[in-house]
Amino acid sequence: MARTLYDLAAADDKRRFSPYCWRIKMALAHKELEVETVPWRFTEKDVIAFSGQGRVPVLVDGDKVVADSWAIANELEDRYPDRKSLFGDVSAHSPTLFVANWVDGVLQPAIAQFILADIYAHLHEKDKVYFRESREKRVGTTLEKFCADREERLVQFRTTVLAPLRLALGSKPFLGGTGPTYADYAVFGAFQWARATSPFKLLEPNDPVAAWRERMLDLYGGLARNSVDYPV
Amino acid sequence: MARTLYDLAAADDKRRFSPYCWRIKMALAHKELEVETVPWRFTEKDVIAFSGQGRVPVLVDGDKVVADSWAIANELEDRYPDRKSLFGDVSAHSPTLFVANWVDGVLQPAIAQFILADIYAHLHEKDKVYFRESREKRVGTTLEKFCADREERLVQFRTTVLAPLRLALGSKPFLGGTGPTYADYAVFGAFQWARATSPFKLLEPNDPVAAWRERMLDLYGGLARNSVDYPV
Repeated sequence: MARTLYDLAAADDKRRFSPYCWRIKMALAHKELEVETVPWRFTEKDVIAFSGQGRVPVLVDGDKVVADSWAIANELEDRYPDRKSLFGDVSAHSPTLFVANWVDGVLQPAIAQFILADIYAHLHEKDKVYFRESREKRVGTTLEKFCADREERLVQFRTTVLAPLRLALGSKPFLGGTGPTYADYAVFGAFQWARATSPFKLLEPNDPVAAWRERMLDLYGGLARNSVDYPV
Repeated sequence: MARTLYDLAAADDKRRFSPYCWRIKMALAHKELEVETVPWRFTEKDVIAFSGQGRVPVLVDGDKVVADSWAIANELEDRYPDRKSLFGDVSAHSPTLFVANWVDGVLQPAIAQFILADIYAHLHEKDKVYFRESREKRVGTTLEKFCADREERLVQFRTTVLAPLRLALGSKPFLGGTGPTYADYAVFGAFQWARATSPFKLLEPNDPVAAWRERMLDLYGGLARNSVDYPV
């Protein structure tokens, strides 16, 4: 059965940088489900118009079309109940959504301050105007000013923003416990977003969060590690 | 077997307002474990010196002494494995700790801006100097200035701070799913902190978070609802 994921790409077809698409690529590998990924750009709204909206990830699984990463994760969980659970247990479902919302509302906006200008540099020409206009409207200044003096904000990011993540990892290798779950993929997507587009070092090597990211990069035969990115 | 919880109290012995102690009172009820609570004040460090530190909750369970709410929750889970799990499943443990850390680092500091001055008004005389000095040092201004114009901050609190909680509740009655888990108790403790000390209305009645709080107040025979507080 054909399974296709529309996956945000940079100028280079193989540079895939959407944090939300990374959640789903990791989730599909977790479920041991093969997928063909199709490079897609922000301005190719017509290509995914069949999904009823204009953003990726869009997963086409046989005759089923699903958009939105959380909806796709739940669809995979429901459609493939015999595969290893993405959430671990029903009791973890809401706390996992809480983590994903924290990534959307706190972690990704914090990382954006370091990488938005670097993302711009990697975009396909046809996406550059759209990206600059939409993001500058969102952040209220130019991409370059938004990312200026980023070194000065790094300590605060590492100590304050990452604190709940560092504490939650504690002595366990993954947010999911002994193995990764969707909570890990939701957080990891944000780091892949940065890694795919920016040489900026977000993490200190001795940070437990960095050790966790190494474990995530190793998963599924190095699925993420072998993607086009800036090794950090 | 004797089981004792040292529980922060206001001037009125029965007004118990520590968010961390509320987590544990709910967790003990979840595990169907009886407990004698002992009213304790901030300045009674000597009373709990046997625990090796100076903060509550302190649980004495037979010959075992444990301080710190997260440590106590884990101790209860390990000590009473035959009782209903506090975390639901091992896969929920880290996401639950993540929620608890969000409460410590985001939700409670946000609520503090509304209630610190009200807490002060309820304190036992012997705690007032300690509380004012320690909290004013922490927040960098007087309690009264810190809580001034609080109505103006209410919309931002309801829309932005509570967003991940509201989204995580979604269509489920509890963060734990069909029933409450420690993730619910960690968040609920923050609301009990406010409810025990302040008449200020944090939630709109039609907010799903308010409906969730009502369910939490009903748990365990109305354990929280029947405490000394400001009905909201």
